[in-house]
Amino acid sequence: MGATKPALVANWETLQRIFIRPEDEDSRRTLIKYMEQILFGLHEFLKAHVGITREASLEALSERFTESRICSHPQKKLADVIQGIIEEIAPHAVNVASPYFIGHMTSAIPFFMVHLHTITAALNQNVVKMETSKVVSIIERQVLAKLHRLIFGCSGDFYNTHIQAPTSTLGGFVDDGTLANLTAMWVARNRCFPPKEGFEGVEAAGIAAAHRAYGVDRSVILVSGLAHYSLRKAGGVLGIGSGNIISVPSSVDHRMDPERLEAVIQELKSGASRTRILGVVAIAGATETGTVDPLDAVADICSREKIHFHVDAAWGGPTLLSDKYRSLLKGIERADSVTIDGHKQFYMPMGCGMVFFRDPRVMDLIAYHAAYINRPGSVDLGIRSLEGSRPAVSLVLGSALEIMGSRGYALLIEHGIETARAFAEEIEKRPLFALVTPPQLNILTYRVFPEEIRRRWASTGPEERARLMRQGNEINIAVQRIQREAGQSFVSRTTLDNAVVLRAVIMNPMTHMGILRDILDEQEEIYRREVLRKA
Amino acid sequence: MGATKPALVANWETLQRIFIRPEDEDSRRTLIKYMEQILFGLHEFLKAHVGITREASLEALSERFTESRICSHPQKKLADVIQGIIEEIAPHAVNVASPYFIGHMTSAIPFFMVHLHTITAALNQNVVKMETSKVVSIIERQVLAKLHRLIFGCSGDFYNTHIQAPTSTLGGFVDDGTLANLTAMWVARNRCFPPKEGFEGVEAAGIAAAHRAYGVDRSVILVSGLAHYSLRKAGGVLGIGSGNIISVPSSVDHRMDPERLEAVIQELKSGASRTRILGVVAIAGATETGTVDPLDAVADICSREKIHFHVDAAWGGPTLLSDKYRSLLKGIERADSVTIDGHKQFYMPMGCGMVFFRDPRVMDLIAYHAAYINRPGSVDLGIRSLEGSRPAVSLVLGSALEIMGSRGYALLIEHGIETARAFAEEIEKRPLFALVTPPQLNILTYRVFPEEIRRRWASTGPEERARLMRQGNEINIAVQRIQREAGQSFVSRTTLDNAVVLRAVIMNPMTHMGILRDILDEQEEIYRREVLRKA
Repeated sequence: MGATKPALVANWETLQRIFIRPEDEDSRRTLIKYMEQILFGLHEFLKAHVGITREASLEALSERFTESRICSHPQKKLADVIQGIIEEIAPHAVNVASPYFIGHMTSAIPFFMVHLHTITAALNQNVVKMETSKVVSIIERQVLAKLHRLIFGCSGDFYNTHIQAPTSTLGGFVDDGTLANLTAMWVARNRCFPPKEGFEGVEAAGIAAAHRAYGVDRSVILVSGLAHYSLRKAGGVLGIGSGNIISVPSSVDHRMDPERLEAVIQELKSGASRTRILGVVAIAGATETGTVDPLDAVADICSREKIHFHVDAAWGGPTLLSDKYRSLLKGIERADSVTIDGHKQFYMPMGCGMVFFRDPRVMDLIAYHAAYINRPGSVDLGIRSLEGSRPAVSLVLGSALEIMGSRGYALLIEHGIETARAFAEEIEKRPLFALVTPPQLNILTYRVFPEEIRRRWASTGPEERARLMRQGNEINIAVQRIQREAGQSFVSRTTLDNAVVLRAVIMNPMTHMGILRDILDEQEEIYRREVLRKA
Repeated sequence: MGATKPALVANWETLQRIFIRPEDEDSRRTLIKYMEQILFGLHEFLKAHVGITREASLEALSERFTESRICSHPQKKLADVIQGIIEEIAPHAVNVASPYFIGHMTSAIPFFMVHLHTITAALNQNVVKMETSKVVSIIERQVLAKLHRLIFGCSGDFYNTHIQAPTSTLGGFVDDGTLANLTAMWVARNRCFPPKEGFEGVEAAGIAAAHRAYGVDRSVILVSGLAHYSLRKAGGVLGIGSGNIISVPSSVDHRMDPERLEAVIQELKSGASRTRILGVVAIAGATETGTVDPLDAVADICSREKIHFHVDAAWGGPTLLSDKYRSLLKGIERADSVTIDGHKQFYMPMGCGMVFFRDPRVMDLIAYHAAYINRPGSVDLGIRSLEGSRPAVSLVLGSALEIMGSRGYALLIEHGIETARAFAEEIEKRPLFALVTPPQLNILTYRVFPEEIRRRWASTGPEERARLMRQGNEINIAVQRIQREAGQSFVSRTTLDNAVVLRAVIMNPMTHMGILRDILDEQEEIYRREVLRKA
């Protein structure tokens, strides 16, 4: 096999060979051997470092990657590249698959996902158009319909009509939740400023012209207090302004407060400047706390006020697969649009974002055509899509749904929620910690809150409390950092109401209470050994 | 191995097993066997259908994919899924790897790319932040610097300073060229309306407020006549308005005419409405014709007028790797920003878009922070990025550069350009065809232009010419469609100056003149057999 010889691209003949799938048994075996190295070699190294990474500071690592010239002649054979990744890269990558890695929404994925991911490259279809994907575009439509039905539960007739109808678009794939939210807000913006007499619509004429045409001074989007930062970014990108993404105050349980939402809407409507509310965004599984906004109550308000209602269920969406817990997302079926990420709780490899629209025609508002593809009237998926060329990740999700079934995914979801609840109980039992946000889904936050600070906190005024908060924050920052650097386990941190908190995301099915107790034990030890002693 | 048993997810124990990499030899062999099926099984089927697809209409295929419910229990084992993809899906996918598939910018990829793609899933790092990627973020910075140096050729000192500096951003990865162009225009927009006394800047305040603050009625972007449709889309998304993406007329060779650009700029500057030109976009390798705009001349104008100069080199960028042909892109080093796609002429799997900025600080204009990641001062790559969660495709490109060397890529580029030139000569030799756009790079367009139409065209007036054009268009549409449906080879079509033309993209190293002559022979035969006979 050409790819293994040092003279790989020294000449045209050798180069050509890497484009031909080898026919002889020896070459095939070599290629398979490389796959074996990838599948198991990487694993061996990750296993050897249970925690996040082997010792090596970012600075030290950075110094190894400073060559900025592309080598003129081939430097490595594929075998060397794989070996190098196994020996030099993987040990300094992050072992997100470890059950001790509970800090972020990236985790272990089922083994078969790697195979499915490989298929997308082996076929290398481009879903932007039928001419480079054919049946794969049809499969994508089916997968979107399955998820749409999971969310919105429209009638069988509805899906029979729309699932393969070229003029219907039930949703779309993008690279991640950020782009899914952006797409939803893009559609919401365009719904508010459609074409009318003397005005071509905001998509063609721009926002400044739209404001003039509709007598508006300012466009805003109202979002949940814990909305993902992608919504501010969407505001910036879409020309609305990130500062016009208005956060609705949360109630004490960190969920959107419908009364405050109502109040904000009325205030904006009665204000001096003429403000148009383009949309309201609720969350089903906030990034930081896993909280779910009261979707039904928000839907009531949006429906009455005729405002586009978007649910960012990038994280929580797959909860709908669990009969036991799908009621936690009650009201999502009333949304106008919904974001769900495949690389989160569908356990797919990076990156798979999806956005769904209840109305199968509303994505017409963002349609684009070209002369060489996506011609008007064609069935190309690229017509209504933020992205152009795209990989066929729908093939991965569609296959995964067949392999797992909704019950398989439900077991994972249920494990996460129930383990998080047990973890919360354990935290409450330990005097060093305070539970900050109990898990509504499978995410919780807590805090090192030492007895001494706790006691003084109870009996002092605001100024001293501010000082205690700062002190407590420093402790939590130190504990999180030292634990991360030790590399045995990883919990992330964030800030809620000025308090630095530790954040745990329970999605790895191998994460059980024994592991979680280990993590708390280690934090207690770090606190006593490193923080208390040095204080 | 759990994934192969029918009872895969019937219970928690079985489910857990699919998350554990198997230790025993038997299970490992099974997983490897699946990879073998993927690597070679798919190939066998694609090989069996040299052309695009086996016979099956879109309608007939659509009818097979109408189930919209997610199965409750597992339907298939991984082995069945793979078998199903090999037997039922692949034969109806598009064999983009065939050397007879010369219609689009999707082609064969070297075999090692599939391995590298697999590695990204096996490691499953998320490059949005260091905490889920560590060394992989550092590698991404290095790969971006290598490409930046290829484009802009700044000094060694420049790269030593910026390659790993947390405050510098030489560029970024996105899913495709559309998002790369969008990112470039996003930055260009923000450069034009920065914060000033009493104004927070366009990113925070939005476009309507920016126009008020700067006394502007309309923002526009000037683009090459053959600009990709993603630029109109970027105008729509960014709130500028797709109608404000103004096409600068091309000269007769389909390249941007610098005098017309100059004229458009002066006209806009002296017009009644106060217009701000946010950027000028030239192309290095137009999607439809492969033409390269006169980059140096455009750079002169942009530099004098102080307008952001973007080059969309999604297609043509890798030409810079060829010492023989890099001068075709002379002037690209003067751009403010450049788009290059990895899944085009870097022969990577879908999807890898990249955008580069000459100024390592300019992406600060699109920075976003969050409390749980990407905190101010952190080194997370997600701070300056359109997307959030992202796969580590930089690992694929970085490894490919090491395996291929610039010389390896140069051989591919040179083959494409030289084969396209030979193909153009062949077309000119054949009386049935007319060459429409000769290849500046490795794309050309031509037309079935029968002797009879040609003769009448020479000696008639505009009305009759319009009729002849329509007649000629119908012929070309028919020939292209019949050839595509026959499934032996694929050439795409587009419309240039109202003429339907056939479009060939020569990027597959296995595409040689013998194949191209076959394709022309088939078109001649289709014309005679199907079109002429029925006319």
